[in-house]
Amino acid sequence: MNMQRNPIRKIWTEGRGAINGWLSIASPFSAEIMASCGYDSVTIDTQHGAVGYETMLLMLQALRASGVAPMVRAPWLEPGAIMKALDAGAWGVICPMVNTRADAERLVSYVRYPPHGCRSFGPTRANFALGSDYAAVADDEVLCFAMIETAEAVSNLEEIVRTPGLDGVYVGPADLTLGLTGRRYRTGFDREEPEMLEAIHHIRKTAHAAGLRMGLHNGSAAYAAKALSWGCDLVTVSNDVRLLAQAAQDSVAEVRRL
Amino acid sequence: MNMQRNPIRKIWTEGRGAINGWLSIASPFSAEIMASCGYDSVTIDTQHGAVGYETMLLMLQALRASGVAPMVRAPWLEPGAIMKALDAGAWGVICPMVNTRADAERLVSYVRYPPHGCRSFGPTRANFALGSDYAAVADDEVLCFAMIETAEAVSNLEEIVRTPGLDGVYVGPADLTLGLTGRRYRTGFDREEPEMLEAIHHIRKTAHAAGLRMGLHNGSAAYAAKALSWGCDLVTVSNDVRLLAQAAQDSVAEVRRL
Amino acid sequence: MNMQRNPIRKIWTEGRGAINGWLSIASPFSAEIMASCGYDSVTIDTQHGAVGYETMLLMLQALRASGVAPMVRAPWLEPGAIMKALDAGAWGVICPMVNTRADAERLVSYVRYPPHGCRSFGPTRANFALGSDYAAVADDEVLCFAMIETAEAVSNLEEIVRTPGLDGVYVGPADLTLGLTGRRYRTGFDREEPEMLEAIHHIRKTAHAAGLRMGLHNGSAAYAAKALSWGCDLVTVSNDVRLLAQAAQDSVAEVRRL
Amino acid sequence: MNMQRNPIRKIWTEGRGAINGWLSIASPFSAEIMASCGYDSVTIDTQHGAVGYETMLLMLQALRASGVAPMVRAPWLEPGAIMKALDAGAWGVICPMVNTRADAERLVSYVRYPPHGCRSFGPTRANFALGSDYAAVADDEVLCFAMIETAEAVSNLEEIVRTPGLDGVYVGPADLTLGLTGRRYRTGFDREEPEMLEAIHHIRKTAHAAGLRMGLHNGSAAYAAKALSWGCDLVTVSNDVRLLAQAAQDSVAEVRRL
Amino acid sequence: MNMQRNPIRKIWTEGRGAINGWLSIASPFSAEIMASCGYDSVTIDTQHGAVGYETMLLMLQALRASGVAPMVRAPWLEPGAIMKALDAGAWGVICPMVNTRADAERLVSYVRYPPHGCRSFGPTRANFALGSDYAAVADDEVLCFAMIETAEAVSNLEEIVRTPGLDGVYVGPADLTLGLTGRRYRTGFDREEPEMLEAIHHIRKTAHAAGLRMGLHNGSAAYAAKALSWGCDLVTVSNDVRLLAQAAQDSVAEVRRL
Amino acid sequence: MNMQRNPIRKIWTEGRGAINGWLSIASPFSAEIMASCGYDSVTIDTQHGAVGYETMLLMLQALRASGVAPMVRAPWLEPGAIMKALDAGAWGVICPMVNTRADAERLVSYVRYPPHGCRSFGPTRANFALGSDYAAVADDEVLCFAMIETAEAVSNLEEIVRTPGLDGVYVGPADLTLGLTGRRYRTGFDREEPEMLEAIHHIRKTAHAAGLRMGLHNGSAAYAAKALSWGCDLVTVSNDVRLLAQAAQDSVAEVRRL
Ligand SMILES: [Mg+2]
Ligand SMILES: [Mg+2]
Ligand SMILES: [Mg+2]
Ligand SMILES: [Mg+2]
Ligand SMILES: [Mg+2]
Ligand SMILES: [Mg+2]
Repeated sequence: MNMQRNPIRKIWTEGRGAINGWLSIASPFSAEIMASCGYDSVTIDTQHGAVGYETMLLMLQALRASGVAPMVRAPWLEPGAIMKALDAGAWGVICPMVNTRADAERLVSYVRYPPHGCRSFGPTRANFALGSDYAAVADDEVLCFAMIETAEAVSNLEEIVRTPGLDGVYVGPADLTLGLTGRRYRTGFDREEPEMLEAIHHIRKTAHAAGLRMGLHNGSAAYAAKALSWGCDLVTVSNDVRLLAQAAQDSVAEVRRL
Repeated sequence: MNMQRNPIRKIWTEGRGAINGWLSIASPFSAEIMASCGYDSVTIDTQHGAVGYETMLLMLQALRASGVAPMVRAPWLEPGAIMKALDAGAWGVICPMVNTRADAERLVSYVRYPPHGCRSFGPTRANFALGSDYAAVADDEVLCFAMIETAEAVSNLEEIVRTPGLDGVYVGPADLTLGLTGRRYRTGFDREEPEMLEAIHHIRKTAHAAGLRMGLHNGSAAYAAKALSWGCDLVTVSNDVRLLAQAAQDSVAEVRRL
Repeated sequence: MNMQRNPIRKIWTEGRGAINGWLSIASPFSAEIMASCGYDSVTIDTQHGAVGYETMLLMLQALRASGVAPMVRAPWLEPGAIMKALDAGAWGVICPMVNTRADAERLVSYVRYPPHGCRSFGPTRANFALGSDYAAVADDEVLCFAMIETAEAVSNLEEIVRTPGLDGVYVGPADLTLGLTGRRYRTGFDREEPEMLEAIHHIRKTAHAAGLRMGLHNGSAAYAAKALSWGCDLVTVSNDVRLLAQAAQDSVAEVRRL
Repeated sequence: MNMQRNPIRKIWTEGRGAINGWLSIASPFSAEIMASCGYDSVTIDTQHGAVGYETMLLMLQALRASGVAPMVRAPWLEPGAIMKALDAGAWGVICPMVNTRADAERLVSYVRYPPHGCRSFGPTRANFALGSDYAAVADDEVLCFAMIETAEAVSNLEEIVRTPGLDGVYVGPADLTLGLTGRRYRTGFDREEPEMLEAIHHIRKTAHAAGLRMGLHNGSAAYAAKALSWGCDLVTVSNDVRLLAQAAQDSVAEVRRL
Repeated sequence: MNMQRNPIRKIWTEGRGAINGWLSIASPFSAEIMASCGYDSVTIDTQHGAVGYETMLLMLQALRASGVAPMVRAPWLEPGAIMKALDAGAWGVICPMVNTRADAERLVSYVRYPPHGCRSFGPTRANFALGSDYAAVADDEVLCFAMIETAEAVSNLEEIVRTPGLDGVYVGPADLTLGLTGRRYRTGFDREEPEMLEAIHHIRKTAHAAGLRMGLHNGSAAYAAKALSWGCDLVTVSNDVRLLAQAAQDSVAEVRRL
Repeated sequence: MNMQRNPIRKIWTEGRGAINGWLSIASPFSAEIMASCGYDSVTIDTQHGAVGYETMLLMLQALRASGVAPMVRAPWLEPGAIMKALDAGAWGVICPMVNTRADAERLVSYVRYPPHGCRSFGPTRANFALGSDYAAVADDEVLCFAMIETAEAVSNLEEIVRTPGLDGVYVGPADLTLGLTGRRYRTGFDREEPEMLEAIHHIRKTAHAAGLRMGLHNGSAAYAAKALSWGCDLVTVSNDVRLLAQAAQDSVAEVRRL
């Protein structure tokens, strides 16, 4: 069990953006399948995904062999859930609804050991999965992303991105659209409305100006590719639920059509 | 809990072939997703799928609302597993490796109540899922498919298809190709070799001549459509593992290409 | 996946009170059994029931076919747990220990999308279980109940019932008795003490005066029927644990007696 | 971990018949509830119950504290399943569909260690649950019941009951009625038809004449009490599914009626 | 289901310190194994252990037969998780990171029923596992431990130990060392640095002076024995993960060496 | 997903014997722990271990990252269970109670694809875990061990070891002692009785003479080392249950003694 490093940081060192898969189905096998498909990282979604702690753990175990960096989206800004995800072997946490500088500081405090935060020590499985030197490298390697997805978060953005210990911001376009524009537009990802594009670019530039990374949730490969071209550092491409449903629907439709 | 009938039999009454989805991932949620995609039936594969009894049961429960007929591929010609799948609420069983008339008779005996067979009485969940009149209708409604997928099975085909109580034969082209041609050809579905096509047509015609249904496992929508055009009564189109893997690979490749 | 509406609201439109079953055993099959017994709705208790997120999800899947409205009692006033229950397909949430107007506002904010609340968008399974138009109808259809079960809650009742977006209050008589009268009386439901009856009627009237629904937890059918006669809008009748234990004890006692 | 003895044998020594609960719901908690209700033994039904190996194990663990003797009904006359149930800590096995002397001998061989049978040695959990002296006492304490529930079994009864190492026969009236009378009568337990009563008494007397115990599956406390009065040694009273469903239906009906 | 009392309190009454096992592997069987090894109590670690609510429940069920007192370390100072652990049948809670008097008061309020706290009433499984008189005895029997493991906690110690309803403090040396000395020393247990020894003795004396119990987490039997000799009231000795890993490594090394 | 080879075959090529760990606890995490301890291979025991199919699958997933070769001991000589273990990604199967040449031939037929056997094609997870070229290499790489552990097996040994396609024999000393000597000696491993040593050496020599590998189940490192010195090719050293229990008992005893 020699030293391991976070593969996403390595990709960034090489000047590339990371292509991230998204896991909303609670299944270690579908996780293993997804991890074989070419993603740089995969994120287990314990917020909106149908995944609880115990299956998340099984998925992290099934993902370990792939070499793909596993991250976890936390259910909420809650210390118990965030620390358990890290102890279970996630290389990073994406936290929803970080709306203020105080939120961001709490998030960082849950992710970093003292004196940088108040993360409690006990990386029970991380010691096995991420290397026996985990305690020494965790604060440098573990990624901490704050989701910017409300009007309040946008208005506090300058303060949020200057939170010490934060690695990046992650944009959830569905919530951000609801938050910024109410119910004027359809829900979902891959926004094309000028004000939404402007908001996304604003977040990206503000993050980069502060030396932070910027991630974006995308519904399609086309939009994800566009996001990479904008300089996004982590682009999520669809998720297992949509990929499976679309592929199955297409295939049934094709049989019926032929 | 009023009377229910097997949706696949209804489709056949309408003169159509049934389009069957295939579930190899052990997850009630992916089952629910697949059941929303337009299939007429879905089969939980407890032979080669990564699915055991307990998740099979959860998947049958999750499938119930969809109105899509659930079937189970048994792990082997074993009475315990076959009867448990039926008690759990499957509308049919597909049994692998039925090679002789004696095999076929054993299979039927596990699926039918006395005096037609030796199925033990206790449809514990079927009573809830398939109607409180299940005991009265089961022998008429439950489907019993024997897989024809070895050289031995092909040579015994005439006897097999005349087994009273058998509803159909189901062809697994991967095993059939191994069995008939050894390792001359690639493994897998969607055979184009003349001798394999001939074998498949022979099985179809022999089944139909005996008044049985014929099902075929297909790797692609195109081949499944072709099978329907040949008169196949149940065509499986790919499975959840391949649909998800292919869709994810395509989507990552598209991001990288764009 | 066409539009669905919350069956409990439909019952209320018809001028009836809803009869609610209560699920404290973590089992999709016992959920399915309970849902076949004539209840209008069933509530999965993730507070005092022996049920965690992952089995709750399986139970929601097993309940879907029944047409009985599934609700969830949250473990506590926690955004993560409440939003996950809704995303998993619950038609309503009953939240324990809502003691102040601020508590009630937080509760509503977790249940409603912006601008009515801060519920994060991602109804991953609800989209499948409750209709593909879920996003459009959720705020109108999902039920939000605040439990009134402490002295503090009773003293803040007028403010609580005026919280915009709240649909009803739900009374837990065991906690309410502890809270209002200390340990003077036995613990449990079906209170007959005059001060407890007075408290329950006070809550009911205050809720109704504010245009809210009122639910009551009952230990027996007789008390539930009485509660319906008082005008309660949702009456829970015992739970799976007590029903099973009582029926089993009675049956053993009968064998021994005969 | 001192010596333990099979509680059912102790009851018989006292000249009483054992009252047996029946577990068809896969839940350690419902098992714990049932075990608190006064039964002398409970049987986990892995044949028609919705229970697989892994939940059976959890249920055996949850039952251990109760002092109620746990037994398992095997899915079929299969060595793997029977031995695994015993290694997991069951005090006895009830095996379905034992139709011939050869079946009975195979059953005994799976339950007894050499030289009395071919049970493989490795009581991994039984060592913890049933005493560290399990290896020494197992062959004397573990109960082996053969189900007599077909016409064939009845015709071979004299030979079956003389199988060395068999402890008793157990009658499943639903299957026995199907087997002996075809579909002339309703399915189910608590038979009152003269020929079925005659068959049950015949089995009981034949078993007792050979020094074996006789168990009967009953649907009601009244019939179980009658069976005890006939001299049955183990009477099952309903099961968790029916007890729960009936109690819930009755309770809803009572609310609606009042 | 007669009255039961907390075995740890009984041990203290006898003037001994309790030897506590620590469960970080999510497995009812490893819990059963550990409970057979001579510990007075075992604690299921739902903070750093790889254990979620649902396996914790199964472990509590498997532990019930042993007579060893089960406790739970909560994931964090969260009312939902703490109350669920108690309702599930834990005889005590150890809560991490209790840093202030206000924290300690919140902790006690989650563990005690009104008027001593705000624990909500519904001991669904505790009623079965810990006695039908649980409601009457819970506040006297359930143990409430606050972890003292930060610099802040040490500075607030005098106030914390005087919190009414608190039974004891529990020291986590790994976090305490990080908190008091930063990263000057190796992480882990069994501290020998003078300032750490001084801190531990200070906490022990302050707790005892206030009439509270003091527990210590130890990595080795030798240190645990030393802690008992100091007067510690509850000493944890290693955990299942380390015991298994060390024993397996030693055994492989021995084979290779021989 | 490039080509992988069975690590055990590689070790043998290097002229060493493989040191094998044994997993009887159903837990992916304890599997991961064991796999970090230096074993060359680990075997999941689905016969006497408390492990069913579904946890076996999770354990295989958790083991994948370790590089330690996973094998499975089958519950019995059953085609369904054996083929499912291989499809799930085991690099080998150890089959209990292979007593005759016919048994051995059936075993091989379940493990090899046509024309070498009748294994059905569908390596659903093996394709992901063991390489995308699995179909091409499986028959050469997968290990097939027959357990020799009865008097009958010893008397048929010459015929058994000449079964084409069999890779080795594996000796279970507990069963073998029961089978050869009845109950004259204690049950268990690490036999020292002259007749048992003679039997073990006879099996080893007969296997080697036929070009087969020979494995031995050992209770201690000392005996395993001795077995290696005899030329055994695979030596199992204790198991997770005993390692954990012994380590925990020792540690508690040490605290009490000090
Ligand atoms: Mg969002
Ligand atoms: Mg096949
Ligand atoms: Mg309450
Ligand atoms: Mg029967
Ligand atoms: Mg700590
Ligand atoms: Mg053996």
